[in-house]
Amino acid sequence: MKAHLLIFSFLTFVFVTGSFAQTKEHRIVFHLATSDTLAQKALVKQVANVLEYWNTAKIEVVVHNNGINFMKQDEARFAKEIAALKQRGVVFAVCENTMKQRKIEKSQILPSAVFVPVGLAEIVLRQEEGWSYIKAGF
Amino acid sequence: MKAHLLIFSFLTFVFVTGSFAQTKEHRIVFHLATSDTLAQKALVKQVANVLEYWNTAKIEVVVHNNGINFMKQDEARFAKEIAALKQRGVVFAVCENTMKQRKIEKSQILPSAVFVPVGLAEIVLRQEEGWSYIKAGF
Amino acid sequence: MKAHLLIFSFLTFVFVTGSFAQTKEHRIVFHLATSDTLAQKALVKQVANVLEYWNTAKIEVVVHNNGINFMKQDEARFAKEIAALKQRGVVFAVCENTMKQRKIEKSQILPSAVFVPVGLAEIVLRQEEGWSYIKAGF
Repeated sequence: MKAHLLIFSFLTFVFVTGSFAQTKEHRIVFHLATSDTLAQKALVKQVANVLEYWNTAKIEVVVHNNGINFMKQDEARFAKEIAALKQRGVVFAVCENTMKQRKIEKSQILPSAVFVPVGLAEIVLRQEEGWSYIKAGF
Repeated sequence: MKAHLLIFSFLTFVFVTGSFAQTKEHRIVFHLATSDTLAQKALVKQVANVLEYWNTAKIEVVVHNNGINFMKQDEARFAKEIAALKQRGVVFAVCENTMKQRKIEKSQILPSAVFVPVGLAEIVLRQEEGWSYIKAGF
Repeated sequence: MKAHLLIFSFLTFVFVTGSFAQTKEHRIVFHLATSDTLAQKALVKQVANVLEYWNTAKIEVVVHNNGINFMKQDEARFAKEIAALKQRGVVFAVCENTMKQRKIEKSQILPSAVFVPVGLAEIVLRQEEGWSYIKAGF
């Protein structure tokens, strides 16, 4: 019987710590698809607010479609804020599909970016890993 | 072997009832960030529709950013509908961060409201608890 | 002890394959609520992009509220693309509640559609089943 208890305790431990980890570490994927600079300003502010509230939150902003100007060197209105957030661990993932369709080169994108093949697929992968999803914009 | 079967049956029971509970009780967090009264009208109607379809659904509407006028006493266009939905158990959670930034006092907010420190964090907590997420608006 | 190992191996197998299945089969529910044809064009393109990237992804597009013109025979701008995506397994689910409110008959809807009583409830059911959620539009 002791062996049973051992197995059972182990499984209980796995479940309990699993749930605990989920409540403890907050992971959020933001979906930015709009070129609206007011929406982008709100996003930058919101990410900072969440990080102030939850210092250890993991945050990824996935940028695609019309949102691409958010990360374009010549159009980005919040490059400074983006760089500061990146310093605090925020990931800015830019959709290569969008770049291809709009003939945008990596060199035209802010150095704070990482690249993902398909923006929406990245968002899906994060949700599959248990991240919460927030659609940016109004 | 009987003890093994017991453990196994118990675990199976935990899994099956866990899944069952999940399909039985519907929990939905709505994210309202727009001041567009047509979008707000649609939201109010949709929440009522969902409640008519699923009487026992738990619904929370998180209001922040530009959506704040939805819950401001002097601007709310759907105060009556909000009060009626609250009677039916719907929670209207207003972001205190938004209120602070816009210098809005609690006394200016509809009495149907509850307050949360950071609207987006509330949405994330709900998703972490397994609630479904719906972004309001068009 | 061998029996214990057997049980334990089986459970491990269940967990591991469970996780594996989750990472292997991607399931995405899109939420379309806008009549904006640019947003609808983007959606059609994005669904095709995701399917090109993940051939076996299960995709459902839930259409309700102002999005209904996307599926109306006399207004649909992307009927050909919708039919092609349906051929590839994409489900286009139209909200009967929206149809009732706007006095739209099933005969007025593209033949590629399936019908669901309440669009938002369909989206919730999918999320409860573990599908990832994407709000369409900008």
